[in-house]
Amino acid sequence: MCEQFNQQLKGFKEELQKLEYLNSALGVLYWDMRVGIPRKSVPYRGQVLGYLSGEIYKIQTSDKMKNYIEYFNNENELDDITKSMVENAQKIYNQTKKIPEDKYKEYAILTSNAEAVWEEAKDKSDYNLFKPYLKKIIEFQKEFIGYWGYKDNKYDTLLDFYEPGITTQKLDKLFSELRDAIVSLLDKIKKSKVKISEEIFARGFTKQDQESFSKYILKKMGYDFDAGRVDESVHPFTINFENKDVRITTHYYENEFRSALFSCIHEGGHAIYEQDIPESLKGTMLGNGVSMGVHESQSRFYENIIGRSKEFWAFFFPEAKRRFNQFKDVEFNEFYKGINAVRPSLIRTEADELTYSLHVIIRYEIEKALFNDEITVDDLPQVWKDKYKEYLGIEPKNDADGVLQDMHWSGGSFGYFPSYALGNLYGAQFLNKMLKDVPDLYEKIKHGNLDDIHQWLNENIHKYGAVYKPADLIIRATGEELNAKYFIEYLNNKYSDIYDI
Amino acid sequence: MCEQFNQQLKGFKEELQKLEYLNSALGVLYWDMRVGIPRKSVPYRGQVLGYLSGEIYKIQTSDKMKNYIEYFNNENELDDITKSMVENAQKIYNQTKKIPEDKYKEYAILTSNAEAVWEEAKDKSDYNLFKPYLKKIIEFQKEFIGYWGYKDNKYDTLLDFYEPGITTQKLDKLFSELRDAIVSLLDKIKKSKVKISEEIFARGFTKQDQESFSKYILKKMGYDFDAGRVDESVHPFTINFENKDVRITTHYYENEFRSALFSCIHEGGHAIYEQDIPESLKGTMLGNGVSMGVHESQSRFYENIIGRSKEFWAFFFPEAKRRFNQFKDVEFNEFYKGINAVRPSLIRTEADELTYSLHVIIRYEIEKALFNDEITVDDLPQVWKDKYKEYLGIEPKNDADGVLQDMHWSGGSFGYFPSYALGNLYGAQFLNKMLKDVPDLYEKIKHGNLDDIHQWLNENIHKYGAVYKPADLIIRATGEELNAKYFIEYLNNKYSDIYDI
Repeated sequence: MCEQFNQQLKGFKEELQKLEYLNSALGVLYWDMRVGIPRKSVPYRGQVLGYLSGEIYKIQTSDKMKNYIEYFNNENELDDITKSMVENAQKIYNQTKKIPEDKYKEYAILTSNAEAVWEEAKDKSDYNLFKPYLKKIIEFQKEFIGYWGYKDNKYDTLLDFYEPGITTQKLDKLFSELRDAIVSLLDKIKKSKVKISEEIFARGFTKQDQESFSKYILKKMGYDFDAGRVDESVHPFTINFENKDVRITTHYYENEFRSALFSCIHEGGHAIYEQDIPESLKGTMLGNGVSMGVHESQSRFYENIIGRSKEFWAFFFPEAKRRFNQFKDVEFNEFYKGINAVRPSLIRTEADELTYSLHVIIRYEIEKALFNDEITVDDLPQVWKDKYKEYLGIEPKNDADGVLQDMHWSGGSFGYFPSYALGNLYGAQFLNKMLKDVPDLYEKIKHGNLDDIHQWLNENIHKYGAVYKPADLIIRATGEELNAKYFIEYLNNKYSDIYDI
Repeated sequence: MCEQFNQQLKGFKEELQKLEYLNSALGVLYWDMRVGIPRKSVPYRGQVLGYLSGEIYKIQTSDKMKNYIEYFNNENELDDITKSMVENAQKIYNQTKKIPEDKYKEYAILTSNAEAVWEEAKDKSDYNLFKPYLKKIIEFQKEFIGYWGYKDNKYDTLLDFYEPGITTQKLDKLFSELRDAIVSLLDKIKKSKVKISEEIFARGFTKQDQESFSKYILKKMGYDFDAGRVDESVHPFTINFENKDVRITTHYYENEFRSALFSCIHEGGHAIYEQDIPESLKGTMLGNGVSMGVHESQSRFYENIIGRSKEFWAFFFPEAKRRFNQFKDVEFNEFYKGINAVRPSLIRTEADELTYSLHVIIRYEIEKALFNDEITVDDLPQVWKDKYKEYLGIEPKNDADGVLQDMHWSGGSFGYFPSYALGNLYGAQFLNKMLKDVPDLYEKIKHGNLDDIHQWLNENIHKYGAVYKPADLIIRATGEELNAKYFIEYLNNKYSDIYDI
C-alpha cells in the first residue's frame, strides 16, 4: 500500500515537474518577447509559444494525469501539500476536459481573434466593432459554466479561477462597504481646500537617474538582484521562471517621476513574494503565489501602504534630494502630498490609491450583472458611464476611455478584476496584524529598515506558496476572515490627514 | 500512391516542425543564460535545457521518425529538399540509435563530468587530471565508430558530422599545402624589417563608442537589426532562433580596440548567413547554415578577407578617425598594418589571420593520429609542443597554454576543429569567383558599398540553407572543388605587401 502510494506520488510529481520546466521555458520566451525580441520575429515567437502551450495542455489533460488525480482522490489523510497538488491538477483538468473538445477549440479561435478586434475597436473608439465578439465570448462562458457547474451564483465559478474560495456573496458585502466609504471620502476631498501641486514630478528626470534610484529602493526592500533583474518594456510586469529568477520590468518617463518609481516598488512586491517561495515546493506546481488577489496584496502593500507612507519617505526623501537636483527647493510635505494626490480619472491603470478600487468595483458589478442576465452587452456603454458618473463623478466621452479600455474581456478573463481590489483589502489587514507583531514597525521604516516587513510577509504569506487557499491563508496570517474595515480605516486616516478633512 | 506520399510528407514535416520549435525555444533559453540570467538561476536553467533537449531527442529517435525515414528511403525521385530532409533525419537517428542505450547513457555522463574536470585541469594547468577522462572519451568514440561504420579512415566518420562529405584524404592534401605555404611565409615575415606597432589600439576606447561603431559597420554589412540584436557576453557568439531572430554577442575591451570590432564583423558574417535563409525552408530542419566549415567561411570572409582589407578601411578609417580622437595622429598605413600584424602565439583564439590555420592543422594532425592509433593520450603534450615548435617556432611552457586550451575534446567534439581552417579555404575561393562576377567589387568596397558582397553570398550560398552538402555547394558557387590555392595566393599577396617581402 505504502509502496504503491509512493510510486504513484513519484509518477505524479514527474508530470508536475515537466509542467514546471515547460512553464519556465514559456516564461523566458514570453519575457524576451516583451523585452528584447527583434520586431520581425514576433509572429514566429507566437508559434513557438503556441507549440509549448499545447505541450503543457497535453500533460495537464492526459489520461495519465486523470489517473493520478483519481488515485489520490481515493486516498485519505493526504498531507497539505499533496492535497493542494491534487486539487490544483484537478481544477486545471476539469477546466478544459469538462468542455466538449470542439467547443473548446471554437472558443480558443474566438478569443484569439477577439483580441485583435478589441485592439482595433479601441483604436477607433468604436464599441460596436467589438460587441459581437464580446457577446459570443460571454455566451461561451455561460455555456462553460453549465459544464463546470455552480452553486449559488454562476459568476462564482469564474471568480474561483482567480481567487479560489471567493464568492459573489462575500464580494457584495466587502465591495459595497468599500465603495460607500470611498465615495464618501472622495466627496469630502472634493470639498477640501487643500490643493496639491504635481508639477515637481515633471521636471525632467533622466532614465539613468531614475533607474539607479529605483534599483536602490528595490535593494532596500529586499529584492535579490542575484535572483532577478530589471528591464524595460512598454507595460511594467513581473515574471518568474523559478524562485531564483524573478524578473521585473518598468517603463521610464522623463516627465513623470512617479511612474517608474512606483511601478518598480509595485513589481518588487510581486517579485519578493516569488523569490521567497521555498525550494521544497519545487516540482509541485505550488511553488508560486497562491492567487491574483494575494499577489496584488503584496505589490500594493509595498507600493501604497509602505511606498506612499510618510515614514517611508522620512528616510528616502532626503536620499531623493541628494540624487535629484530637481527636488532642491521641494519640501517634504509637497513631495508626500504629491505622491498621494487624489484625482478621479477615467482610466483604471492611471488611478490613484483611493479611487483605484472604484474602477475595479464598477467592473465587478458589471460582470456580475452580465452573468446573471441583469444586463446585456448592448447596455454596457451606458451602464459604464452611469456608474463612473455615480461613483467617481466623471464620465467617459468615448468608448476607448470607457468600456473598451481593458483587454481582459477580449481574452474571456471574467472574474479577474476583483483581485485588484481584494489586494488592497488583504494588504491593510496584513498591516494591522503586522503592527501588532512588530509594534515599532513605523519607527524602523523611518530609518530605512524594511527587513521586518519582508520577514513578516515571508513568514506569514510567502513561504506557503500556493499550498493554502487565500481564505485559509488570511486566517492563518491575521486570525480572522477577510474584511473591509482595516482598509477603510487606513484610507480614512491617511486622507483626513493629507486633505485636512 | 501520390496521396499516401503527401500524407507521409505532411506527417514527417510535422515532426520536423516540432523540432524546430523546440530548438528555437532552447536557443532563447541558452542565449539568455549567456547574456542575462541572474547568477543563482544557472543550475535550474540547466535542468530546463536538459528537459527540452530530452524532448528533442525523443522526437529525433522515435519509431515514428524511423518509419518516415524508411518510407522515404524506399521512394525514388525525391526533390532536393525532401532528399536532404530525409538524409538529415537519418543521420541524427543513426548517430544515437546505432549505439546501445546503456553505452550512450554512460558516455553522456562521462562527457558531462569531463567538462568540469577539464576546467579544473586547465585552471591548475595539469594535463594528468584530464588525461583519464580524455582516454575514456576517445575509447568510447572509437567504439561508436564501430557501430556507425566507416570507409577508409575511422576519423572520417567524425569529420562527417561537422563537415558532411569531407575526408581525411581530402584534408591531408588541402592542409599540407596550406601548412607548408604558411610556414614558409611566416619564415619570411620573421626576417622582414617591417615592424608593426599595435600601441594605437590600447588607447582607451569607451564601450559606448565601440558599440556604436560596431553597429554602424554591421548595418553597412547588411545585418538586419529588425531581425537581430547585439548584446554582451563573456565570449562572442551568434545564435539563431529563426531566420528573423539571429543574435550576436560581443565583449568590449577598453584597451583592445580590435577585439569587439572584429568579433562583431565575424559574428555578423555568421548572422547574415542565417538571416538570409529563405522562408520556404521553414519546417524542414534545413533552414540554417549547412556546416561548420561553410559557416566559418562566411564569418572569416567578412572578418578577414573584407574586414582587414585595404579597400574596406579606405572607406571606414576616415569614419573611425571622425569617431575616435585616439586615432587623430594615426596614419592609414599604421592602422592597416596594425590590424594585420602577424605574431605567432600559443593560443588559437588569439591568433592572427595568417597563423590561425596552423593552430587548426596541428589539432587535425593530432586527432587523426589519435584515431588511427599512431599516438596515445600519453604522447599528447609532447606531440603538441613539437608541432608548435615546428610550425610556429614557439612552444607552450605549460599544459594550460598547450594541450588543455580548448574545451572541444572534453565534450567529445573530435572532427570539429578542421572546420575553422576550411572556412578560410572556402572564403578565398568564393572571393576569386566573386571578383569574376563583380569585377569592380573592390572599387565598391572602397566607397563603403558592401551590398554586392552580401548579394553574391546570398545568391550562391545563403539561399540554399542546408539543402546542398558543402562539396556540392562549392561546385555550384565556384565551378570547382575546394582547393587551397586561392587562399594561399591571397595570403602571399597580402603579406608580401604588408611585410615588404
